[in-house]
Amino acid sequence: MSTSPASQANGRPQVLIIGCGFGGLEAARELQKTGVDVTIVDKTNHHLFQPLLYQVATAGLAAPSIAAPIRLLFRRQPNITTLLGEVVGIDPAARKVELADGTQLAWDHLIVAAGATDNYFGNDAWEPMAPGLKTLADAFEVRRRVLVSFEAAEIETDPARRRALLTFAVIGAGPTGVEMAGTLSEIAHHTLEGEFRNIDPGSAEVLLIEGGPRVLQAMPESLSQKALEQLQKLGVQVRLNARVTAIDETGLVVSSPFSDGGAGLGSHRIDCGCVIWAAGVAASPLGRLLAAATGAETDRAGRVKVQPDLSLPGRPDISVVGDLAAAMSHAPGKEPKPVPGVSPGAKQMGRAAAANVLRRIAGQPTEPFRYRDYGSLATIGRNSAVVDIGSPFGPLRFSGKLAWLFWLFAHIYFLIGFRNRFVVLMDWASAYWSFQRHARVVADVQAPRKD
Amino acid sequence: MSTSPASQANGRPQVLIIGCGFGGLEAARELQKTGVDVTIVDKTNHHLFQPLLYQVATAGLAAPSIAAPIRLLFRRQPNITTLLGEVVGIDPAARKVELADGTQLAWDHLIVAAGATDNYFGNDAWEPMAPGLKTLADAFEVRRRVLVSFEAAEIETDPARRRALLTFAVIGAGPTGVEMAGTLSEIAHHTLEGEFRNIDPGSAEVLLIEGGPRVLQAMPESLSQKALEQLQKLGVQVRLNARVTAIDETGLVVSSPFSDGGAGLGSHRIDCGCVIWAAGVAASPLGRLLAAATGAETDRAGRVKVQPDLSLPGRPDISVVGDLAAAMSHAPGKEPKPVPGVSPGAKQMGRAAAANVLRRIAGQPTEPFRYRDYGSLATIGRNSAVVDIGSPFGPLRFSGKLAWLFWLFAHIYFLIGFRNRFVVLMDWASAYWSFQRHARVVADVQAPRKD
Repeated sequence: MSTSPASQANGRPQVLIIGCGFGGLEAARELQKTGVDVTIVDKTNHHLFQPLLYQVATAGLAAPSIAAPIRLLFRRQPNITTLLGEVVGIDPAARKVELADGTQLAWDHLIVAAGATDNYFGNDAWEPMAPGLKTLADAFEVRRRVLVSFEAAEIETDPARRRALLTFAVIGAGPTGVEMAGTLSEIAHHTLEGEFRNIDPGSAEVLLIEGGPRVLQAMPESLSQKALEQLQKLGVQVRLNARVTAIDETGLVVSSPFSDGGAGLGSHRIDCGCVIWAAGVAASPLGRLLAAATGAETDRAGRVKVQPDLSLPGRPDISVVGDLAAAMSHAPGKEPKPVPGVSPGAKQMGRAAAANVLRRIAGQPTEPFRYRDYGSLATIGRNSAVVDIGSPFGPLRFSGKLAWLFWLFAHIYFLIGFRNRFVVLMDWASAYWSFQRHARVVADVQAPRKD
Repeated sequence: MSTSPASQANGRPQVLIIGCGFGGLEAARELQKTGVDVTIVDKTNHHLFQPLLYQVATAGLAAPSIAAPIRLLFRRQPNITTLLGEVVGIDPAARKVELADGTQLAWDHLIVAAGATDNYFGNDAWEPMAPGLKTLADAFEVRRRVLVSFEAAEIETDPARRRALLTFAVIGAGPTGVEMAGTLSEIAHHTLEGEFRNIDPGSAEVLLIEGGPRVLQAMPESLSQKALEQLQKLGVQVRLNARVTAIDETGLVVSSPFSDGGAGLGSHRIDCGCVIWAAGVAASPLGRLLAAATGAETDRAGRVKVQPDLSLPGRPDISVVGDLAAAMSHAPGKEPKPVPGVSPGAKQMGRAAAANVLRRIAGQPTEPFRYRDYGSLATIGRNSAVVDIGSPFGPLRFSGKLAWLFWLFAHIYFLIGFRNRFVVLMDWASAYWSFQRHARVVADVQAPRKD
């Protein structure tokens, strides 16, 4: 057991968890009612149910419905302390992290679960023009841009600018991009119907731009095809094998081998009022900080390469879990396989790392991490989703209305808190019948101004 | 009937309404299904139910529960067009207003319902340190400051700074100030109980600072006394006859004839983490713009003095309603009395101004405005409120639990939309039993930083 200053205060091992996403939350839960003291530090005051963040961005849900105050979750766990703070430094020699306000937190065992940010693949200048969807603040910004685009189109008299304001581009056709594009199309065609006098919101174009050859590439090919068909049925224009080569204030440039000309050979410009980035994730900057401090390696996405038990080489007191970890799954008798960057992966890693901390404290050997894949699912819009899950009879793949109901209840089930489950279910039922989205409210809208 | 360019397009009189608070909303509703074309222009995309804004600020309600998209409200009214825009100029000669984006809107009849902002009584520099409560953005900022104060106290090790972070000052004991102070005290003593490890949130102090001799001065004196007792029972420290003479980043200075010394004779400094301004309203700057353009007079608060029929002297085509109007109530056979700055006053003025527009168009004489006072009510916290309403048997005044239930159902009744009524009722029921406030979520929290 460690004898660092951390545990000297009360003799109990001090576990520090950075980040309270799925990985950090599950790690802390695993350490409830044990003999360790846990401190969770997070940049925000809430655990966010990220799979439904796009619903906040598209005004279907209010923010509090998918976010739970971290300290409320651990209210009845006296061994767990919650702190609001941003980690800006890690000192493995002293076993301390430093927060932005100068506070130092000591650890005997450190679990880093700082997650991921958007990956602009070297084009960070695009960020202001094409916000991503990682935090509640992102979701509010996207909601503002989407709603204000329609508002600006209603007042715009120039036909070309009006058309641009009614063009929405979603970049990246992973689950978030597909969900965003499908929902935006539904908003244009149904939610806003009859509310405008100068424009027809149904004339809006929603583009889904994907660099690869199919949507939902992590899914089996047959389901990608189903998802594509459902997107097209919803009116989304899907452009595959298309790369965004430029983004500015008024639009973007797409190049594609199949492009029909435009601004250049195989490359053309699209004027649009709203660009949403869903093209990829990069590890939190804490990954490189940690690697520099410990000598651990990072992969191309900045994720920290961990040992089979999720700890760092030569530093059994430091584990990395979730989107920040480049981890492998070790099933007995099989080749190690990379753990996918999905929430069940983060949750399982969080639990495994915490269990290994307890084993170390008990003087037992740690266990290698094994990811259990229960399948994946994505929704495209009303009545449409794709599901790929395991079953005793082999993989079960289906799409359409049944898949959508499955998606719906799975998400309700994994939401935290009875109130939120109930309200989300109610909001969805009401949206289903009325096509309405009740959270169409922008707090800090900027009315359009002269250029 | 006017022959300005506005009505030439289709021959129908063009009514322009600036602002969609209570006054503008009711004016537009009065003009539904009539032979006029209505355009509503507002700086935000929603009508806000301001009486419950303090509940958003204190994390009891999500923003969408008390805000309705304006264009959704008028979706089925083809004669009503909604525009998002900020009016920056009024040209009575041309009968046009100019928006920030350069758009010009013409009118045959103009109803100005631009409302009020916070009044810092010449100390506008205080605004960043002491936000008010007028918009959803204000409410989010107050929510952030309140929740982050407790968070910062949990991590603060210096006892004096920790004490300051746990001191909340509400300035002004009108309905909003009383509601804020009561709710903050409830949050400290009940909602956050058991969630912190380093501080006792119940040790927080909530100060309610009022310049006058009693709280809720618009209410009968007996109810002010009841409200004071209920506030004190909730743990709020009420300071009457106390004036704030300075506010800075870390606290404020209060002077009072009964003060027990401190920074000066009758004046002392209070270090606090969070200051909330509820001390008064000033008319929207549009009031002075309008007065300058038309020669109308404004009162000390910047409100535009209107004629008995709510139009401006010499400009029957321009009416002013709501908090922007200095209006009198004209009951037959009685002295004219000022209309109080409350939401029923704004609603009644909106309806009356719109009805007078229709009378003018029909060539009928306009009617003077008469305010009907149905009473007033304010809540202090759980189970406590004061009510003063008229009844066939004379004024009815009561306080306590019954008054609180009356307040509760009155507010549910006046909320717009079935979904919001239902969710607010549900959230309140849940909060009543659990003491929880489900919207304790801060989107853009700034973790504390080194100074």
